[in-house]
Amino acid sequence: MKPMPQFEPQDPQYERRVRDSFARQRVMETLGATLLRVAPGEVEIALPFRAELTQQHGYLHAGVVTTIVDSACGYAALSLMPPGAGVLTIEFKLNLLAPAAGALMIARGRVTKPGRTITVCAGDVFATPAESDDAPDGAQRQEKQEKQEKLVATMVATVMTIRDRPGVSD
Amino acid sequence: MKPMPQFEPQDPQYERRVRDSFARQRVMETLGATLLRVAPGEVEIALPFRAELTQQHGYLHAGVVTTIVDSACGYAALSLMPPGAGVLTIEFKLNLLAPAAGALMIARGRVTKPGRTITVCAGDVFATPAESDDAPDGAQRQEKQEKQEKLVATMVATVMTIRDRPGVSD
Amino acid sequence: MKPMPQFEPQDPQYERRVRDSFARQRVMETLGATLLRVAPGEVEIALPFRAELTQQHGYLHAGVVTTIVDSACGYAALSLMPPGAGVLTIEFKLNLLAPAAGALMIARGRVTKPGRTITVCAGDVFATPAESDDAPDGAQRQEKQEKQEKLVATMVATVMTIRDRPGVSD
Amino acid sequence: MKPMPQFEPQDPQYERRVRDSFARQRVMETLGATLLRVAPGEVEIALPFRAELTQQHGYLHAGVVTTIVDSACGYAALSLMPPGAGVLTIEFKLNLLAPAAGALMIARGRVTKPGRTITVCAGDVFATPAESDDAPDGAQRQEKQEKQEKLVATMVATVMTIRDRPGVSD
Repeated sequence: MKPMPQFEPQDPQYERRVRDSFARQRVMETLGATLLRVAPGEVEIALPFRAELTQQHGYLHAGVVTTIVDSACGYAALSLMPPGAGVLTIEFKLNLLAPAAGALMIARGRVTKPGRTITVCAGDVFATPAESDDAPDGAQRQEKQEKQEKLVATMVATVMTIRDRPGVSD
Repeated sequence: MKPMPQFEPQDPQYERRVRDSFARQRVMETLGATLLRVAPGEVEIALPFRAELTQQHGYLHAGVVTTIVDSACGYAALSLMPPGAGVLTIEFKLNLLAPAAGALMIARGRVTKPGRTITVCAGDVFATPAESDDAPDGAQRQEKQEKQEKLVATMVATVMTIRDRPGVSD
Repeated sequence: MKPMPQFEPQDPQYERRVRDSFARQRVMETLGATLLRVAPGEVEIALPFRAELTQQHGYLHAGVVTTIVDSACGYAALSLMPPGAGVLTIEFKLNLLAPAAGALMIARGRVTKPGRTITVCAGDVFATPAESDDAPDGAQRQEKQEKQEKLVATMVATVMTIRDRPGVSD
Repeated sequence: MKPMPQFEPQDPQYERRVRDSFARQRVMETLGATLLRVAPGEVEIALPFRAELTQQHGYLHAGVVTTIVDSACGYAALSLMPPGAGVLTIEFKLNLLAPAAGALMIARGRVTKPGRTITVCAGDVFATPAESDDAPDGAQRQEKQEKQEKLVATMVATVMTIRDRPGVSD
């Protein structure tokens, strides 16, 4: 397997741009989603389980899962854009692999192939159980948590770079 | 162009099944979506615009659009299932064609090809402007409204039939 | 159902452009595919069954089916492009609905939504049985043939307009 | 990043089953494709460049690229099936990332999530330049080659398990 490519951001303020844009996505506050991590070409969004967001069997609705992983993919693309350029998701595909059950969903979007006009991203959504109070700290805690993660959905998204369109940057 | 196929429901109670299941999707109440129409192999869901559901440019988030059209597709499939069988969406693709702006979104899901195990559905989301007070009635009104509809997204969804799995029917 | 939109070609030579480009797709001659029909926003490609193109069960391989419907979609998009602009398919999704068995496959691509940069197309592949010798002529023949057609696959494709890139037009 | 899962084959004869089935795909011989590698949940297929398989710009047609990566994904799924069960690809999505130019295409399919009824696979197609005569041997050669590989396309495929259907196993 080839190692994951390391991306160089073109905008040193990439994290602030992503965080500012995320803060303007009002649906995230409505759902209770938060922006966990922003790295060049990779973004994580977390969503705690809420019964108000479920489908008929008590799992999170696929559209809710889509909301966080679509934004994770779009912001992964935005993190590599030059200053002034924005992004527009033109299409995505989501495969649902397991019921979206668990205390917390984490959506991880990352750039597969950056491009001048078209950037392709991949996203995964993991369900994690509730953290116990006596969880270990730091690296050990992360390792334990990753073992308990269950892949519930996987996305491929195609994102277009938008230039010179007032109001559509970021 | 071949005429759209007419489907025969296998369950005479198909509409009640769809409406009962929709009523259990708590996310629909949270978003403010309602079930407009249930026909054999075709379902419509409406969602009035709400600023709490928007992305950074003030349009409805693609995940919100996905929520209503995914359910419209899944229920279109469910409307053709025999009594006792349920459905599970295994994957979908969404193309975003225009910003999800407008007073009301209408998602229309319909069965492209029913199958014993796999049913393929197509869905469209139309944005309609607010209705004016002096709108004409009945058929004329509907005709006028359809002219003003704008296609904002189109989905293809693959749905699996679930049998003999307690709690997963409908 | 809304009527299918009628498209105005921007290039009066649209049919010649499509036919010239198709003639340069050497894979089409290798497979035995021919360009049936070119209309503004709609293109049909035919492929007679050949045992050399089959998968392990004796049906046409899904990749062969993809070849003709991908080109039908791309050329449907090209038929609406202004002179000098070319097209590039950036992604597609194919659902396989029935085995690709039958004497002749016909792929029909049509534009769902034209755009300055991104055009979305839909494609279908129909299998038809061999024509009998005493088939009626003209419209009656076409009607009979359409009744016998079986939908074997359906595609959604996203196509990008290419401008000012020498060698990539058409 | 989570480590790639290791899969346990349910059929000790998994490699022979995959190779026998591949040998029956007559399209592979027609295109000139060969089965490079079969491991549990992972399959590689190679295709040398041939001008007879190109589109209008002299690159391999996207449908040809699809043919090898679709089979690589399907056989990755088949390698994990129990004896007697076969596979059927029900849908796939392909993103085209770069022109399919180069002396050799290698398609790598691998299982993302195995399941009793539905298995999801991911596939990549890499283009490699012609090997020079003074290429180093063994591991060094492989390392050099991987550095020169260019990702030209990426697929997600949904595969269904087929049981008890005579003639459709493998």
